[in-house]
Amino acid sequence: MVLALYELVGRDSQRPFSPHCWKARLALAHKGLSFESRPVSFTEVASVENGTGRTVPVLCDGDEVVQDSFAIALYLDRAYPDRPSLFGGEAGEGVTRFVESWSQRTIHPYIASVAILDIHDVLDEENRAFFRAKREAAFGRPLEAVQDGREAEKLAAFRRSLEPLRAALQKQSFIGGAEPRFADYIVFSAFQWLRIVSTFQVLEVGDPVADWFERCLDLHGGEGRSVSAA
Amino acid sequence: MVLALYELVGRDSQRPFSPHCWKARLALAHKGLSFESRPVSFTEVASVENGTGRTVPVLCDGDEVVQDSFAIALYLDRAYPDRPSLFGGEAGEGVTRFVESWSQRTIHPYIASVAILDIHDVLDEENRAFFRAKREAAFGRPLEAVQDGREAEKLAAFRRSLEPLRAALQKQSFIGGAEPRFADYIVFSAFQWLRIVSTFQVLEVGDPVADWFERCLDLHGGEGRSVSAA
Repeated sequence: MVLALYELVGRDSQRPFSPHCWKARLALAHKGLSFESRPVSFTEVASVENGTGRTVPVLCDGDEVVQDSFAIALYLDRAYPDRPSLFGGEAGEGVTRFVESWSQRTIHPYIASVAILDIHDVLDEENRAFFRAKREAAFGRPLEAVQDGREAEKLAAFRRSLEPLRAALQKQSFIGGAEPRFADYIVFSAFQWLRIVSTFQVLEVGDPVADWFERCLDLHGGEGRSVSAA
Repeated sequence: MVLALYELVGRDSQRPFSPHCWKARLALAHKGLSFESRPVSFTEVASVENGTGRTVPVLCDGDEVVQDSFAIALYLDRAYPDRPSLFGGEAGEGVTRFVESWSQRTIHPYIASVAILDIHDVLDEENRAFFRAKREAAFGRPLEAVQDGREAEKLAAFRRSLEPLRAALQKQSFIGGAEPRFADYIVFSAFQWLRIVSTFQVLEVGDPVADWFERCLDLHGGEGRSVSAA
């Protein structure tokens, strides 16, 4: 049985960049499960697996079709209990939800603003138009204006907002403790998204968060490095 | 064998208020372990159990003396593995560290500023002088000036900063998932600290965080309600 993962890509089908898809990719790597990548563009996402309005990632495991990165991780721990656990049990699942909420509200909005034009630029012409229309409607201004000034004071505030993560990583190697868990892949994937689409550097050399990110890139045979930095 | 817990109190030895001590108290309640409370004031903390410069809580379990709330919770899960788990395993420990870092950097500084005078006021004369001198040196201004204006814009920003917690609690009853874990007691204890020393209300009615706080107050026979609100 071959697993298949639908992942978001731009012009280059070998460079999946969506943070949510990377969470699923690392979850599969953690479980030691190989999979077939099914790259889709923004405009193709809604019709994946005959879905109406789906989001990616979508995992297909035989007849099982699982949508949403967190649901995929939960599914993998239940379907493959003999392989390394992503959550380390039910308590881990609950607390990992909190990590996801934090990442989603602290890191994602920042990256979605400072790299919005970079994301646009990795897309093909049709998807650029689709992406620009959607995002400019949401932001209420041109993408160029959203990304403008990213080197300025917003960066310092963003680095400060990582302080809870930094403090935890000064006590342990991974968010999951001595070993990485799905909580690590959640936060890693946000920075991986930026790494793949943009040359903009947000982490300072020597920051424990930067060191942890490098450790995560090395995991599972360097799965994170299988796509090069922008 | 009777366990003993050194806890910080003010004038009233029946009203422990320190958030860190409450974490330990709830951890003991979660394990179903009864304990003898040993109330100490700020000026007595450093000499607890012949320590030089200790902090509270300190747990004594026979010959074992354990300092620091997180260390106490880890100790309890290891010493009493047959009782309900506080972390749900090693992965839970790691991710709970992140929750602690978040709580410590998001909730504690806010409460320590908006309730600084309230904390001062629950102390006896000697401890008031001690507390005021230490805290005014740290803040660089009178306690009255620190607490001043707490109804204003800082409150709205604080409520927004709880968004990761709120989002997680919209998906599950507790930070730990379906059941409470030490991660819940960490965050609960910050709000419990405020509840015990101050009448200042920071959570709006209907906020999922407020509902969760009430659920936490009910846990373990209403342990949190054993000390009334200010």
